Amino acid sequence: FDYDGPSMKTTVPGPRSQLFVLLLNFVFSQNVGAVNFFCNYEESRGNYLVDVDGNRMLDVYTQISSIPIGYNHPALLKLMTNPNNLSTFVNRPALGILPPENFPDKLTESLLSIAPSGMSRVQTMACGSCSNENAYKAMFIWYRNKERGQSGPSAEDISSCMVNQGPGCPDLSILSFTGAFHGRTLGCLATTHSKVIHKLDVPSFDWPIAPFPRLQYPLEEFSRENAQEEARCLEEVEDLIVKWRQKGKPVAGIVIEPIQAEGGDNHASADFFIRLRRIAAKHGCAFHVDEVQTGGGCTGKFWAHEHWGSDDPADIVSFSKKLLTGGYYHKEPYRIFNTWMGDPSKNLFLCEVLNVIRRENLLEEVARSGKALINGLYELQAQYPGLLSRARGQGTFCAIDVRDDATRPLCVILGGCGDRSIRFRPALVFKEYHVHLFLNIFNDVLTQF
Amino acid sequence: FDYDGPSMKTTVPGPRSQLFVLLLNFVFSQNVGAVNFFCNYEESRGNYLVDVDGNRMLDVYTQISSIPIGYNHPALLKLMTNPNNLSTFVNRPALGILPPENFPDKLTESLLSIAPSGMSRVQTMACGSCSNENAYKAMFIWYRNKERGQSGPSAEDISSCMVNQGPGCPDLSILSFTGAFHGRTLGCLATTHSKVIHKLDVPSFDWPIAPFPRLQYPLEEFSRENAQEEARCLEEVEDLIVKWRQKGKPVAGIVIEPIQAEGGDNHASADFFIRLRRIAAKHGCAFHVDEVQTGGGCTGKFWAHEHWGSDDPADIVSFSKKLLTGGYYHKEPYRIFNTWMGDPSKNLFLCEVLNVIRRENLLEEVARSGKALINGLYELQAQYPGLLSRARGQGTFCAIDVRDDATRPLCVILGGCGDRSIRFRPALVFKEYHVHLFLNIFNDVLTQF
Ligand code: FES
Repeated sequence: FDYDGPSMKTTVPGPRSQLFVLLLNFVFSQNVGAVNFFCNYEESRGNYLVDVDGNRMLDVYTQISSIPIGYNHPALLKLMTNPNNLSTFVNRPALGILPPENFPDKLTESLLSIAPSGMSRVQTMACGSCSNENAYKAMFIWYRNKERGQSGPSAEDISSCMVNQGPGCPDLSILSFTGAFHGRTLGCLATTHSKVIHKLDVPSFDWPIAPFPRLQYPLEEFSRENAQEEARCLEEVEDLIVKWRQKGKPVAGIVIEPIQAEGGDNHASADFFIRLRRIAAKHGCAFHVDEVQTGGGCTGKFWAHEHWGSDDPADIVSFSKKLLTGGYYHKEPYRIFNTWMGDPSKNLFLCEVLNVIRRENLLEEVARSGKALINGLYELQAQYPGLLSRARGQGTFCAIDVRDDATRPLCVILGGCGDRSIRFRPALVFKEYHVHLFLNIFNDVLTQF
Repeated sequence: FDYDGPSMKTTVPGPRSQLFVLLLNFVFSQNVGAVNFFCNYEESRGNYLVDVDGNRMLDVYTQISSIPIGYNHPALLKLMTNPNNLSTFVNRPALGILPPENFPDKLTESLLSIAPSGMSRVQTMACGSCSNENAYKAMFIWYRNKERGQSGPSAEDISSCMVNQGPGCPDLSILSFTGAFHGRTLGCLATTHSKVIHKLDVPSFDWPIAPFPRLQYPLEEFSRENAQEEARCLEEVEDLIVKWRQKGKPVAGIVIEPIQAEGGDNHASADFFIRLRRIAAKHGCAFHVDEVQTGGGCTGKFWAHEHWGSDDPADIVSFSKKLLTGGYYHKEPYRIFNTWMGDPSKNLFLCEVLNVIRRENLLEEVARSGKALINGLYELQAQYPGLLSRARGQGTFCAIDVRDDATRPLCVILGGCGDRSIRFRPALVFKEYHVHLFLNIFNDVLTQF
């Protein structure tokens, strides 16, 4: 059901997109600062995003990595025409108090069928931010329960928490890493350190921030240097845990992405993560792996942390984006609640997405096209050392740094790219064929420099 | 399309619901602490919620006030069968960068058509929490821009914000009220003060909390006492603003619900809110009215703040629940962004909900049934002074306090009720007929005491 290839009719944004931006901005006073162009989602298909000017682009960015199996996948369209499913879309329940009849079934079929190793509980949420916010709350509650032991909250806990003061609202912290991105609500934002524009002017918490390893790529070629850098970072983590405990703001949990995404596609070794998890355990901190961007198959495994080969990778794993519903896996029950607690209509889509992934062996496909992609990037990088550097990736979750002015022409045929790097976040239906299509176009652009 | 009346087959939760709870808890290790019972949403219709045991209950609580026009409204089912709408459900865009073609149209048809007085800008979000979180961020950014005047952020602003420190992450605060509920993510939670269970063990901000007026009902009968109480609270607000400025944590914004919902259905007069808004302006604080629970027509006007009769009620108005999409209205553009920025499929439903509200004059209906409801509650309260007290409400957004043990039998035919009070949060299609149905049942229950 995919198109043959890209097809450009105008420059991008084209005249219709520009008109829409003006309309939205001046007629309706809406904020359009970040709009790339307007899309025709009806006409978009598979790996191709069609805009309102009829341009058809190979989409390697897929709505910030949130379209799992391409646009308008027939399986999802079919699901919509099944009359049994209508009620799930029309009646959004308060899932925490009044779940629908098929809730246990759908949960088993979807999220429980892909649970990370060692985790049997899952809490659905509606987006990446509330997934992480509530995961942090779960870690704080867990930590305080542990401290209190058998005894329940004290009278002082109870009275002080209502006015935002300790001990009821304790001075606990979450340790995060430089370059991390975990969301933009106030709790998440205190652990996000990717861009100034996210953080500026927003009050925050005095929580510890450890250095994320700055590795050299390809990782295999610099294993000694990289191991040293990782050891330095782990040492710093332990120092910070001790320091913040002494400060009276103990670290309740450590949060980390298996690949730092918004922070610039920064990788680290399996060994690093496993040792980090051990440090967390040693100091009594929960270990939270944020798979909001890496989960869902784009690394060639369903979860990026599976590449670590550990059967006890984490205490909490959060997800969203490609999984359509947000949420987190965990090990212990906590008192987490809100109005919607997710959205069963997204879960319905997820069930079907997982069927497609299994039926079409999409994880293997991703591993295959990922290999073709990274090898192609290595080749181009060897060919254009002045323009390209630091090709890196796992599965199709790849990136390459590009000299500033060289990226612009590419944006014309790719659905969005960054300032100094091209980040690949294609759908799971991005096949080897699409990799070669992309590499050819990329090569054409590069020869013009 | 509504049913004739409630119909009970078993006690609630019935045997099938209990089985599902056991299944979810012991087989799937899921957290079921808050589950009331399992629902058959396919069979639910209008004001009636049907459970998996075939019990049909008059639903006055509507999924924590989030079902605007009843279950399975034909207009919404019809919308689902329109093939032009499929793509909106199947392809969720990153709205901030790649909006769909019909976005300006749909925005005009839906959210802009019901914009509060003096507000032309709207930012969609996905739930009440991210609506409030981002509204707070907008107020912080606005406040700092005002402080900086023409000059942009300093080098120190930029470097300090990346490590969670001032001046980049400034020590600004949001003033909230005792008994307030604005959500459970960490920023929102710092302004929420309704229940211990929401707050305990979660780190918070040292932000000022003013007393919300504790009025006597019916408001008209105690106007002198209530005016005194409101004056006391307003004085305290000014004191806190001054005190927190001196503390070095200036109040960037004040947030308040037009009727405190989760905190126990606490009302205040139009005069109180108008004077509060003036105090905010006087001290250079933004004024944020949280209409997440009150917005959408349940008070007999689309926004509860319309009852104040002000043409400049607020700087920010946030919404969610009955509006299906979250978001907030505002006056100035800010740099707010996240992956999804809402969900156009919810906006599609909202367009249709607004059509139904207009076509069926539902706001007038709500005003009418609200009057019948509050008068009925007054009568019962006069009849059973030992059991009932403090009947209060606006539109169908009503509540009455009930002696502890008297509420239980009612839960059997109402879709959920609180500990010490019955809160009414019916759909907008709750007609006078349903009011009388409820009052009769309620009366029957009360005679048993
Ligand atoms: S915070 Fe996740 S949907 Fe609102």
